[in-house]
Amino acid sequence: MKIDIIGRGNVGWHLTQAFEGKADVNCVNPRTLKDLRRDADLYLISVTDDAIADVARRLAASLPTDAVVAHTSGTTGLDAIRPMFANSGVFYPLQTFTKGVSLEYSEIPVMLEASDETTGKTLSAAASMISDKVMEVSSEQRAMYHIASVFSCNFVNHLWALSAEYLAKRGLDFNALQPLIKETARKHEDKTPAEAQTGPAVRHDRLTIDRHTASLARDGENELKEIYVPLTESIMRHHPKSDKK
Amino acid sequence: MKIDIIGRGNVGWHLTQAFEGKADVNCVNPRTLKDLRRDADLYLISVTDDAIADVARRLAASLPTDAVVAHTSGTTGLDAIRPMFANSGVFYPLQTFTKGVSLEYSEIPVMLEASDETTGKTLSAAASMISDKVMEVSSEQRAMYHIASVFSCNFVNHLWALSAEYLAKRGLDFNALQPLIKETARKHEDKTPAEAQTGPAVRHDRLTIDRHTASLARDGENELKEIYVPLTESIMRHHPKSDKK
Repeated sequence: MKIDIIGRGNVGWHLTQAFEGKADVNCVNPRTLKDLRRDADLYLISVTDDAIADVARRLAASLPTDAVVAHTSGTTGLDAIRPMFANSGVFYPLQTFTKGVSLEYSEIPVMLEASDETTGKTLSAAASMISDKVMEVSSEQRAMYHIASVFSCNFVNHLWALSAEYLAKRGLDFNALQPLIKETARKHEDKTPAEAQTGPAVRHDRLTIDRHTASLARDGENELKEIYVPLTESIMRHHPKSDKK
Repeated sequence: MKIDIIGRGNVGWHLTQAFEGKADVNCVNPRTLKDLRRDADLYLISVTDDAIADVARRLAASLPTDAVVAHTSGTTGLDAIRPMFANSGVFYPLQTFTKGVSLEYSEIPVMLEASDETTGKTLSAAASMISDKVMEVSSEQRAMYHIASVFSCNFVNHLWALSAEYLAKRGLDFNALQPLIKETARKHEDKTPAEAQTGPAVRHDRLTIDRHTASLARDGENELKEIYVPLTESIMRHHPKSDKK
């Protein structure tokens, strides 16, 4: 399969890695569109969200009308490119990518959406080459997965950043928490996150909770307090006192 | 070294595992204190926070005045047992324990606090048997580590629980996020969490953020919105727009 990847950012770099040796991949500079092949089986637009529509328009001017074109964004609907191509789609690998760090691509879900059956088959054939988890997902569902991944990853990472900052300010060592973080992540291989919940909130340990909020307020850590309170209340609501832990 | 562990909960179980083959360990029922040895080198009180003082009082009545006694709680100060013993301390392994699941104990930090040098030496000798990370930590510092671990672990786990619930309600699959969660946890082996931050907030992508909050509000997910907003604002404050990502 001939695949042209338009874009050399994070996702473009990783898709090129993933398809290496499995498809005939060609990287195209999204600014110049130099080296664009007119006969590729699939074109993947992998640029920032706000540049997708512009790149798609310029691609449409250069490609045959039956070219199969998909973007790789989690947050952009199929609508962004559908008007320009008869065969349009979305090819979204759900992962947090770091340029230069290869990953086990076969585990990464690829979420597909297609304007029509032909496009669907092409996308599915391409996705199956690199991933064992090919999923059909509508634009609306993809937006929901994206919201969930903001909670599960972006917010989680920020809680670690806040913890690291809080400890560093006091000359304490964030690395001491690493085994705890590792085990927290490992635990939900065996249990659901709800079952794995520990801590003062799930125990309805008001004494400790009040000590924590008083300590944060006393130390002027209002930002932390504003996060501590709704998360603690949410844990308590999800684990009513009658559920003995 | 002769160690009596008073308490058979999570932490007691794990400490027994950890000391197995390294010290002469004896488990004592905290209710009856049956089988308590009068000549142990160290007594570890491993019961719920609100039971520590009571167990300490009853131990004090049974043991020689120079017995070395420590509790294993992260949230309770040394004060809780200091009045009862000349040689008192805290022996706190910083980890989230699940009864029945053995861990790599050598990686787990053990945070020590002692009323005096003799106790300090005994605690340090015992902790070194099971851990490569023995730390001296005051009650005040331990409380700060505990606050950080609530953010880094309890809250993190709850964000996963909320994501799982949000997706399940919509017939979507939380397992699709697992590779993303795994990679998020792995990333900060290479980078600090602040460096590893991704997502719409760090990009100041107002369009996506507004879409997310509108979608949560529309779906009646007010609890999620109340968590989304302060975390997003905190990320934006920590990553001013001028920091190009």
